[in-house]
Amino acid sequence: MTDKQIPDIVVGRLPQYLRSLQRMGREGRTLTCSQELGERLGISAAQIRKDLSQFGEFGKQGTGYQIAYLVEQLQKILNVDHEWEIAVIGAGDIGNAVARYKGFSNRGFRVCMIFDINPDKIGSQIGEFVILDYANLAETILAARIRIAMITVPADRAQEVADRLVNAGVKAILNYAPISINVPEGVRVQYIDPSIHLQRMTYYMDES
Amino acid sequence: MTDKQIPDIVVGRLPQYLRSLQRMGREGRTLTCSQELGERLGISAAQIRKDLSQFGEFGKQGTGYQIAYLVEQLQKILNVDHEWEIAVIGAGDIGNAVARYKGFSNRGFRVCMIFDINPDKIGSQIGEFVILDYANLAETILAARIRIAMITVPADRAQEVADRLVNAGVKAILNYAPISINVPEGVRVQYIDPSIHLQRMTYYMDES
Repeated sequence: MTDKQIPDIVVGRLPQYLRSLQRMGREGRTLTCSQELGERLGISAAQIRKDLSQFGEFGKQGTGYQIAYLVEQLQKILNVDHEWEIAVIGAGDIGNAVARYKGFSNRGFRVCMIFDINPDKIGSQIGEFVILDYANLAETILAARIRIAMITVPADRAQEVADRLVNAGVKAILNYAPISINVPEGVRVQYIDPSIHLQRMTYYMDES
Repeated sequence: MTDKQIPDIVVGRLPQYLRSLQRMGREGRTLTCSQELGERLGISAAQIRKDLSQFGEFGKQGTGYQIAYLVEQLQKILNVDHEWEIAVIGAGDIGNAVARYKGFSNRGFRVCMIFDINPDKIGSQIGEFVILDYANLAETILAARIRIAMITVPADRAQEVADRLVNAGVKAILNYAPISINVPEGVRVQYIDPSIHLQRMTYYMDES
């Protein structure tokens, strides 16, 4: 969009704006404003206006934002104006839930394959997917030009899986294993670890 | 610990430090330093020292940190030096995976009950749990003095579930439904939405 460096923390809020706006759209709404968006998200209206203004002029003073237009612009900015195919590594409980998750479709993502290392699982079905052999991970991902993967294996295996994914050209990893993984520059990792989120709340709670 | 207000962003990093230190402990290690911790986490050593110094003196210049001691201190700070019981609302794929998740036990949490609204599910078993009737949510949670819950219901139902949980005395909600929910002051919400994390990475990726 622009050449200037936008802080990660600003970028990090855009998906929340997009999600709320898409929801308003589904509710049949056509216009909104930073105040309303802020109330839905628990973010100040001023912050939202400031964040969005880094990317362009999306609203008119006094009339607010056209929801459909802003959705489209945010999808372009976040590179989700098309669907990315995702590989899931690990067909345990979480891999299962993620592979069958209905929530990706209007957000720019589609799980397209799932791998496991367990011979009892390979070849069996999860929803629409046949579980693929982890031994063939690199060539399968390379051939399909997959750039995004989710790791849902135990913590002890996560780094090895990440290394293989990176070698196969994956540039973004969503890691559900409760461990930090190291990736080379140019590859991004995000983490989903429910205990981390829970501890961020218990800090503020009285003992009991 | 102290009366001064610690920024949320600092608090937010403590669970990552704790997780890494616990892992080092399981690896049989007894000492570490901010440099090593930083390399594992992709956070600068100076940042780690600064964060920890807000809570006390945990290490000695030149000798680093005693892992077991720092783990214990962080568990106290984060209020996870005991186990919190958690209720899960929604026995779909994600609720299932979360209820059976093995990773909570050494992190300060234990799922103790799961609810659903679907008569076909109520009374049936997930792992060690019998699925409870959502109609009895409030009294069951009140009686068990549950303070933490995870919402794994569809987006459309999440706010109503959150309202009921708050009325039943819940103070911390981990929301897996892809929607922002409103809670009164004194109640905390954290979100797990994989699409949000994925979009935070696709922003930086070339189209393809």
